[in-house]
Amino acid sequence: MDIGFIGLGSMGSAMVRSLLRAGHSVVVYNRSANKAEAMREFGATVAREVCDACRGDAVITMLSDDTAVEQIVCGDHGVLGCVAPNKTVHISMSTISPALVRRLAERHAELNQNFFSAPVLGRPDVAEQGKLFALVAGDQDLIDWMKPVFDALAQKTFVIGDQPPAANVVKLSCNAMIGSMLETLGEVFALVVKSGLVDPKAFVDVLLSTILATPTYRPYAQHLLDHELKPGFRIPLALKDMELALGAAKEINVPMPIISLIRDHLIEAIAIGYGELDWSALSLVAQREAGLPG
Amino acid sequence: MDIGFIGLGSMGSAMVRSLLRAGHSVVVYNRSANKAEAMREFGATVAREVCDACRGDAVITMLSDDTAVEQIVCGDHGVLGCVAPNKTVHISMSTISPALVRRLAERHAELNQNFFSAPVLGRPDVAEQGKLFALVAGDQDLIDWMKPVFDALAQKTFVIGDQPPAANVVKLSCNAMIGSMLETLGEVFALVVKSGLVDPKAFVDVLLSTILATPTYRPYAQHLLDHELKPGFRIPLALKDMELALGAAKEINVPMPIISLIRDHLIEAIAIGYGELDWSALSLVAQREAGLPG
Amino acid sequence: MDIGFIGLGSMGSAMVRSLLRAGHSVVVYNRSANKAEAMREFGATVAREVCDACRGDAVITMLSDDTAVEQIVCGDHGVLGCVAPNKTVHISMSTISPALVRRLAERHAELNQNFFSAPVLGRPDVAEQGKLFALVAGDQDLIDWMKPVFDALAQKTFVIGDQPPAANVVKLSCNAMIGSMLETLGEVFALVVKSGLVDPKAFVDVLLSTILATPTYRPYAQHLLDHELKPGFRIPLALKDMELALGAAKEINVPMPIISLIRDHLIEAIAIGYGELDWSALSLVAQREAGLPG
Amino acid sequence: MDIGFIGLGSMGSAMVRSLLRAGHSVVVYNRSANKAEAMREFGATVAREVCDACRGDAVITMLSDDTAVEQIVCGDHGVLGCVAPNKTVHISMSTISPALVRRLAERHAELNQNFFSAPVLGRPDVAEQGKLFALVAGDQDLIDWMKPVFDALAQKTFVIGDQPPAANVVKLSCNAMIGSMLETLGEVFALVVKSGLVDPKAFVDVLLSTILATPTYRPYAQHLLDHELKPGFRIPLALKDMELALGAAKEINVPMPIISLIRDHLIEAIAIGYGELDWSALSLVAQREAGLPG
Repeated sequence: MDIGFIGLGSMGSAMVRSLLRAGHSVVVYNRSANKAEAMREFGATVAREVCDACRGDAVITMLSDDTAVEQIVCGDHGVLGCVAPNKTVHISMSTISPALVRRLAERHAELNQNFFSAPVLGRPDVAEQGKLFALVAGDQDLIDWMKPVFDALAQKTFVIGDQPPAANVVKLSCNAMIGSMLETLGEVFALVVKSGLVDPKAFVDVLLSTILATPTYRPYAQHLLDHELKPGFRIPLALKDMELALGAAKEINVPMPIISLIRDHLIEAIAIGYGELDWSALSLVAQREAGLPG
Repeated sequence: MDIGFIGLGSMGSAMVRSLLRAGHSVVVYNRSANKAEAMREFGATVAREVCDACRGDAVITMLSDDTAVEQIVCGDHGVLGCVAPNKTVHISMSTISPALVRRLAERHAELNQNFFSAPVLGRPDVAEQGKLFALVAGDQDLIDWMKPVFDALAQKTFVIGDQPPAANVVKLSCNAMIGSMLETLGEVFALVVKSGLVDPKAFVDVLLSTILATPTYRPYAQHLLDHELKPGFRIPLALKDMELALGAAKEINVPMPIISLIRDHLIEAIAIGYGELDWSALSLVAQREAGLPG
Repeated sequence: MDIGFIGLGSMGSAMVRSLLRAGHSVVVYNRSANKAEAMREFGATVAREVCDACRGDAVITMLSDDTAVEQIVCGDHGVLGCVAPNKTVHISMSTISPALVRRLAERHAELNQNFFSAPVLGRPDVAEQGKLFALVAGDQDLIDWMKPVFDALAQKTFVIGDQPPAANVVKLSCNAMIGSMLETLGEVFALVVKSGLVDPKAFVDVLLSTILATPTYRPYAQHLLDHELKPGFRIPLALKDMELALGAAKEINVPMPIISLIRDHLIEAIAIGYGELDWSALSLVAQREAGLPG
Repeated sequence: MDIGFIGLGSMGSAMVRSLLRAGHSVVVYNRSANKAEAMREFGATVAREVCDACRGDAVITMLSDDTAVEQIVCGDHGVLGCVAPNKTVHISMSTISPALVRRLAERHAELNQNFFSAPVLGRPDVAEQGKLFALVAGDQDLIDWMKPVFDALAQKTFVIGDQPPAANVVKLSCNAMIGSMLETLGEVFALVVKSGLVDPKAFVDVLLSTILATPTYRPYAQHLLDHELKPGFRIPLALKDMELALGAAKEINVPMPIISLIRDHLIEAIAIGYGELDWSALSLVAQREAGLPG
């Protein structure tokens, strides 16, 4: 298919390569042009303007936050002003607020433009292999039409509902659940380590082989054993996602005390100098609060 | 092997049947004698006194809490007064405090009695199939000697350390992690349901097929879809375990805010009339706090 | 003095009356004109446009939130476009974010306009008596010049610092402390009531006569005894303030778990139907979580 | 009156001096005898045995915790075995669990012994001046009879109810409320300091002169300004009281999330080396979590 792709961070760049490898033709746009230029060697065409990326079968936006989407989609010369009615589908893959997705859906609908939401689960290395999980919500016909796109990007595609914000509610929920796993792992690991009794490797073995086993724990537990946090999902981005989840929950009056607690600990992580680390640095916060070297 | 077994709750009874099925000979003791009598038909011998169950290769205690263990093990005519030095191994499988296990280890050591700790993960149906996970800590030679016992009870045995309380630290940690998963699932499910946008089945599908997938979620997610909490691990027992974890952590000055939060919600669950339900009723607390019917 | 006053909610209207009573001449502006008209009978002049209120010695803005201030101060034909350089002082008395106050200060400075921040503590009945507490931050000469204004409005004026946002940091801190008092009072009252042992009047007597005694408790404790929450500071406004405090703290990486907890409980209060009540309805949340009728 | 006094910590010793100064005759007992001997110079008689302090009009117990009371009151040769029926009143002034007070009341009643509970609010310097607040619960006739004792010790005596544990519920509630004030003050002070904008003295002035003003804040706010925590109520004792409050609340199924949070932070305080400080060191925990020097 002919696909435009806007937003070439580490996730976006990996996704573009997966699309190209699957035989799609891709026109890329990025605010800092050098990241777009770097995609040429993989076979992408570079767009000068947002509109140049909005003329194919679909244009995917994969941007860092609500502000970036507001600017690139709703701003002057933005996606909303570019896509032709009843033609190019705008697929919003960014992790943004359900409220913004609702507004995008309304604006696109007013303009008879095609739109649905499809945030993804997985890190850049998974995106590189086309093995993401896609959370999709919107018009089923449009989703069906775009099946080749998701075949290239994701190992599995979940249709969450027919209203686009639904996908973002689930995406934020998933991140909150991962955050809770990291927070809990951190607290428990502090207990296990400070007890001085437990072989940490045996503990991790329990974690990975029993009813607790989850793919989420696998890399993080290893990091704890290695005393080494790999760069991954940086704390400020994780904090942004926790605030998006809290905001979405507040909109409909749902208290989420676990996420409030994780938010507080992410802020503490930044305060004490871990702001550049992967958010599994929540374990360092737990260790520091337990008086361990951290 | 010749095994004594003290404590015939739903877990203990299922474990006795697994031992019998594996060809061991088992002498059972229970404070309410009728539960012991019920084991006769499966081939167990019934002991009149604690001491009658303390004369084989091993005596296993599988009791409900610290108080029961204090009474049956440390009390008059208790296990400590019965087992012969350097002979019968006392294996403590109860979910009790590391502090009590430390005291048991010291008392047994003073009397030259064999002892180690081996709490288990898994519910009665898993115990019935001999598919528990055993968390074992103590003298390696004793543990090796008792391998046939664990082969009968557990699908996997983890050696956690050489000091008995270590196993209980890990057991309590595992329960805390499960509690956190249930609490988080409950909060997130309240968000998903109250949004009115998300197909709950699709959400559960995401939960069970992605990096979040864990065996722990499987039955609980189904309960949420069915609006039906199966009897399982009753809330007061779960609360006991959270308090044991908090107590063990406090002993070594480790704050565990996630577990404090779960403790508060379990108390709320009892306060509002869910005290007889499985502890996944944490989801009902979350729904009630979100103003959902609950 | 000649004073413009913008924002005639229950607080603003009471403050205008205090200014008039003290002999100041006041030009009022409000977006819904009827509230401005109602001030005529007390001696105020009604402005048609924002600019009509910006020509005296000072213009006070007393608006409900950041959005209102953005519109009335920064918007087209707003305060920033009206006040003459080095003349009329804009005094921002609204409870708004320190970040917005910082931006206002910068914009006013660029235009050589006089500006400082002066949020107030106290409810409408206190404003009516001119007995507020004023928290003031900015240029000392301007503050000194405006002394007659504060003499009319406040029983005491605190100079918090020389940078305007400082006053808002303190204002939000004070509200957070009041929130914490209400939350704690609610939780403790639930304990006291549910114990069934304590004479609630004796408990309130302890509260109001010992080292716990604070003017904050006086009205609220009475409400608890009367089972009657008087209308006062509505929960959605309280929630707004807690979020402003959390936002201001997050900006400089300060975790505030107590405020997170209050925020969660205010959301719960709205979720369960108490959204129109005074924020001391936090006690109803506590009672409900304790299984009391609530 | 003739009064026995058991428990001569810093509070007990000060109270004995107040009783002596008021003209009462006092027989003192303490487990470590040197503290009892030190009371001779103020006019007290020293008892060799608990029973020697149980023969007057009243015997007051002022002990550190439940364990000490269990031993001194319920143990061999303890108060329960010493006081004559319908004669000497046992007044329990210790901060202990309502559950233990209930048991004491039952045991005393079975033996036809006079008993009521009267924990106090205030620190040693206040006890020295006879200016405590007494929280009293039990039989009104006994309480009336003991009026001279309370006149010597307290500036005000509150009758909380007719069942002794009621007084301890209120005492624990008061300590929880003070704890919450300290925690909140600590969090807010971290915000104020880290903002770099606010004059801390001005902030404390606001705290002590407005609707927030409470005697509790006065010394603590000064400590914050002085960067100096005076020895006072040590953290492990504060933690004990928070756990007593949580335990009393759990007994009747009342969740108290604020106290859970304070408990976690007191544990953190001990973990990071502040275990010997006054519990206002909660502010140091808040500062440390905010990345301030702490």
